[in-house]
Amino acid sequence: MSQTALETLIDALHRLPGVGVKSAQRMAFHLLQHDRQAAAELARALDGALAAVRHCARCYTFTEGEICPVCSDDARDARLLCVVETPADQAALERTGSYHGLYYVLMGRMSPLDGVALSDLGSQGLVQRALDGVVEEVILATSFTAEGEATAHVLAQGLKSRGLKVTRLARGVPAGSELEYVDLSTIAHALNDRR
Amino acid sequence: MSQTALETLIDALHRLPGVGVKSAQRMAFHLLQHDRQAAAELARALDGALAAVRHCARCYTFTEGEICPVCSDDARDARLLCVVETPADQAALERTGSYHGLYYVLMGRMSPLDGVALSDLGSQGLVQRALDGVVEEVILATSFTAEGEATAHVLAQGLKSRGLKVTRLARGVPAGSELEYVDLSTIAHALNDRR
Ligand SMILES: [Zn+2]
Ligand SMILES: [Zn+2]
Repeated sequence: MSQTALETLIDALHRLPGVGVKSAQRMAFHLLQHDRQAAAELARALDGALAAVRHCARCYTFTEGEICPVCSDDARDARLLCVVETPADQAALERTGSYHGLYYVLMGRMSPLDGVALSDLGSQGLVQRALDGVVEEVILATSFTAEGEATAHVLAQGLKSRGLKVTRLARGVPAGSELEYVDLSTIAHALNDRR
Repeated sequence: MSQTALETLIDALHRLPGVGVKSAQRMAFHLLQHDRQAAAELARALDGALAAVRHCARCYTFTEGEICPVCSDDARDARLLCVVETPADQAALERTGSYHGLYYVLMGRMSPLDGVALSDLGSQGLVQRALDGVVEEVILATSFTAEGEATAHVLAQGLKSRGLKVTRLARGVPAGSELEYVDLSTIAHALNDRR
């Protein structure tokens, strides 16, 4: 028996990260029974994002233009380049109001156990970006997890070997935590104490 | 500033039941960064289900034809009509292999606190369906929760007043539990002991 449209939808929802079969079933029933408009809007939003969203040519974050608004902002200090794992981590740093430099977004972190090598991340572009002749310091703000530390370690080696000054957020950030969940004052403090 | 395609996508994912803002963000990043194919397939699956899935004219469950495969099955005992809350509950009963009658799927249950009245469910069609002249017994298999019991109570009154024999799954089903999570032998037992 071939798959029904309902089964196809449940399978597609099940492929979302963190969504089990039961949740996918509930989502599908909910959308079809109670919120068909939300289902239609989600389909349009997916198509819209797939068509519009690409990577910033300078910092690799998601953007809809060639260069993202942060990289396009002349008021920012182009001598500082802060390397983060995700747009959510960047947003957390922005909310502190303590950082006025530019960013580079890796879009992930090294995870050898999951088969994610550094070369799978946006790190290829980082060295080139950091060597633009304007950047004086690269601040590594990857997570203070084993994987984030390993990522920072490897990046630091590559950047230092090319003569760049490399710092790391201070250990004010509690170990084992993901940056986006850390309170803002802690992040601000760690930023000032970078080593 | 108008909303970006990425923000629109995060909002649309956030409208899925059980998905918070952080989860929606992670889903959007994951889809755009690592699984654009899944995003495209989900959009197609949503459109496909919206176009194809409707309610069975006899039992109100989701189906793609006028009448669902179960209702179309001549081998089933049309004298028995089992009322369940959801297609998942129906699937649980089917897996017991102990029931060979037909179904009526309410697509929800009464939930006064959430503003869901009996009239919001597929219950309007139930009385008409049960009075087809063939049905001899209506088995109420709504959940053994307060809301499921209340739903069963109201349905029983309406059906009995029209001269139908109404039974309820036996109390073998643990109180407070949702049918779809109950082990199959318990459901089978409760089916035999219906009162
Ligand atoms: Zn940028
Ligand atoms: Zn049917």
